[in-house]
Amino acid sequence: MKEISKKNFDGYKYVDGGVCAAKGFKANGLYCGIKENPTKKPDLCLVESDVMCSAAGVFTQNKVKGAPVTVSQKNLAKTGGKAKGFILNSKNANTCNADGEEKAYKMCEMTAEKMGVKPEEILIAQTGVIGQILPLEPIETKIDELYEGLSYEGNEKAAIAIMTTDTVKKEVAVEFELDGKICHVGGMGKGSGMIHPNMATTLNVITTDCAVSSEMLKKALTDIVKITYNCLSVDGDQSTNDTCAVMANGLAGNHEITAEGESYEVFKKALYIVMMNITKMLAKDGEGATKLLECTVTGAKDLDTAIIVAKSVICSPLFKCAMFGADANWGRILCAVGYAEADFDINKVDVSLSSKAGEIHVCHNGAGIEFSEEVAKTVLLEDEITISVSIGDGNGTATAWGCDLTYDYVKINGDYRS
Amino acid sequence: MKEISKKNFDGYKYVDGGVCAAKGFKANGLYCGIKENPTKKPDLCLVESDVMCSAAGVFTQNKVKGAPVTVSQKNLAKTGGKAKGFILNSKNANTCNADGEEKAYKMCEMTAEKMGVKPEEILIAQTGVIGQILPLEPIETKIDELYEGLSYEGNEKAAIAIMTTDTVKKEVAVEFELDGKICHVGGMGKGSGMIHPNMATTLNVITTDCAVSSEMLKKALTDIVKITYNCLSVDGDQSTNDTCAVMANGLAGNHEITAEGESYEVFKKALYIVMMNITKMLAKDGEGATKLLECTVTGAKDLDTAIIVAKSVICSPLFKCAMFGADANWGRILCAVGYAEADFDINKVDVSLSSKAGEIHVCHNGAGIEFSEEVAKTVLLEDEITISVSIGDGNGTATAWGCDLTYDYVKINGDYRS
Repeated sequence: MKEISKKNFDGYKYVDGGVCAAKGFKANGLYCGIKENPTKKPDLCLVESDVMCSAAGVFTQNKVKGAPVTVSQKNLAKTGGKAKGFILNSKNANTCNADGEEKAYKMCEMTAEKMGVKPEEILIAQTGVIGQILPLEPIETKIDELYEGLSYEGNEKAAIAIMTTDTVKKEVAVEFELDGKICHVGGMGKGSGMIHPNMATTLNVITTDCAVSSEMLKKALTDIVKITYNCLSVDGDQSTNDTCAVMANGLAGNHEITAEGESYEVFKKALYIVMMNITKMLAKDGEGATKLLECTVTGAKDLDTAIIVAKSVICSPLFKCAMFGADANWGRILCAVGYAEADFDINKVDVSLSSKAGEIHVCHNGAGIEFSEEVAKTVLLEDEITISVSIGDGNGTATAWGCDLTYDYVKINGDYRS
Repeated sequence: MKEISKKNFDGYKYVDGGVCAAKGFKANGLYCGIKENPTKKPDLCLVESDVMCSAAGVFTQNKVKGAPVTVSQKNLAKTGGKAKGFILNSKNANTCNADGEEKAYKMCEMTAEKMGVKPEEILIAQTGVIGQILPLEPIETKIDELYEGLSYEGNEKAAIAIMTTDTVKKEVAVEFELDGKICHVGGMGKGSGMIHPNMATTLNVITTDCAVSSEMLKKALTDIVKITYNCLSVDGDQSTNDTCAVMANGLAGNHEITAEGESYEVFKKALYIVMMNITKMLAKDGEGATKLLECTVTGAKDLDTAIIVAKSVICSPLFKCAMFGADANWGRILCAVGYAEADFDINKVDVSLSSKAGEIHVCHNGAGIEFSEEVAKTVLLEDEITISVSIGDGNGTATAWGCDLTYDYVKINGDYRS
């Protein structure tokens, strides 16, 4: 049920392999015991490229930044956008700790030593409880085993090791052609609470064998984050550790993309497909969620207006509860559209709700219209619901993703630390 | 348990009487059957002053405005801030209906006819489900009985008639002296979901026997709303019908307040006490709530900064869940402080949690400090929790109020319409 439905795009083919789908990327994940855990759920993972990569990252905008965020940002600045490996752990966010930065850097050092590169050529991301001292010993003990276990099929192990309250691992990869060469973009992500627009990602690793300069990588990443991860909200809380980094090793053999143009657009679209699908996976596996909600706004005067309105609907706790109850309480949608801080005419708003079971049109020109409650119930009992909101006759369109608000969200978060 | 603890203020005495505490105000409430309801919970109420009042109101900032909001705004504009009566109903918001404005005005007409005044001298507020046609007939049928039942002790009936998912009625009144005359300010309010900063009030009626010009009434109301109702959040949803109006009939016999000065400050403080206590009542009776959360921010560079940070903490779903679980997960507080869009140094943030059971200091200079989990549990098991956040050495201070997020919030809102 937590599987998302995937839309097809001409010229792009979904493939297996996650972060190892692209040529020359190895991964591994294992349990090292950062936090005592009888189930031995893996908590540490590593991704390595056979050759040095162009790299770019986007990070949390929270004033409280986890130590791994600061270290990754400094590393990327030092190298001018290069990376050979990426180490990640769950079970401890290493945030609000006096010795956090020192320890995050130490983890880069350990990894770099194994790979024979400089510490600043390693990226790091961490997730878990905030404000608990990170024990380095379990990581030091297991780093050899972690490195030696790296494999071209290790993507699944890595994807599992970054999971926290996620109930399913999140991986996507696509294959496409560029300059007659087969290229790949693949990625993994983890959710699933403390997720909100403005780097809503928590941790995401994207790999590609395309040759792309780190400048163009940063540009593509920034553009695509805006319309994917930043249009995702599970609970409105913006994490301290949100990180999404892309590594491009160029092993596909295409001409390096160093400027905008046709090749850049082909690559960017692949990045969009991967990140959009991970976004949907994050939403559908939101803490306690039973439904994926997808709100598409059309007719806005521009992209930003469309994004603001779509996010407002997706973030409304009352609407999220109504969806949990499969209740077509469209007044709550209109209410959320109305308090969105954007410029449009509320009297031109149309709303419909759809799923694979059908569609109901509930509001025209800002006022309710009659619909069958019976059909509405059938539509809303599905586990992927689309909310279509037209707000005028402009060209701006955007989609935001979220999930319903359920008893289980409260349960999970009422007792997270124990 | 839903009763709030009331703080005392020198020179002001809490008294009974709600909207009838002030001289010359009558009220009544009854069941007219706006929506079929076997329990016959009252759904219609009226407040009348013996003499014409100065009046002022603040209203929702949602682009979707309920018809009663539009009508009250127009009426106040027409009269230049006068009102004789105030009619309110629950069970139907009369919002997003093509004939909504016409019907809301018709309700003012019916009331005005009874009181022998003009329709624009009546205020109106409505609450309930959005987008359902309002039946006027039950109101027409009962308006005589409603009017004839008005009494100087009718405050409680009125307060009950505006309740929706509220579990307790909300009334406060204070007595104080001005120019040697005994004065009163009293009020009633209703919550308890779809409540968020920016007129977080849903419906509130404040009455006073002080003589105050409508201009100064508007000024005092606007200032006090900013630091009371607008610092309240139950769920982040901003209603379409939020209304808070004050009526001042001057029967206390003080010199009319027409400018700032000592008398104005005395009156404004009374207004603050009433509105702040109603705010606390609304928070504590938030949908599904088991705890009142009060976040006080000090050391901000100005009032606005303090308000933004305090609201950010109160609005965090993750923190709200942690409080439901009595879990001192202070990282979530720091996270919410960090994503507040305000200017301060995160490395100077101190946080403590307190209740009548004691206090724990959990964070100093942005980093965690050791505390007893056992004491923390004792502190957090109480039903009123104060979160104290110091963010620097400025003079800006503010308080925001909210409640925990519980299973019952989801239950109530997963099936509201039925």
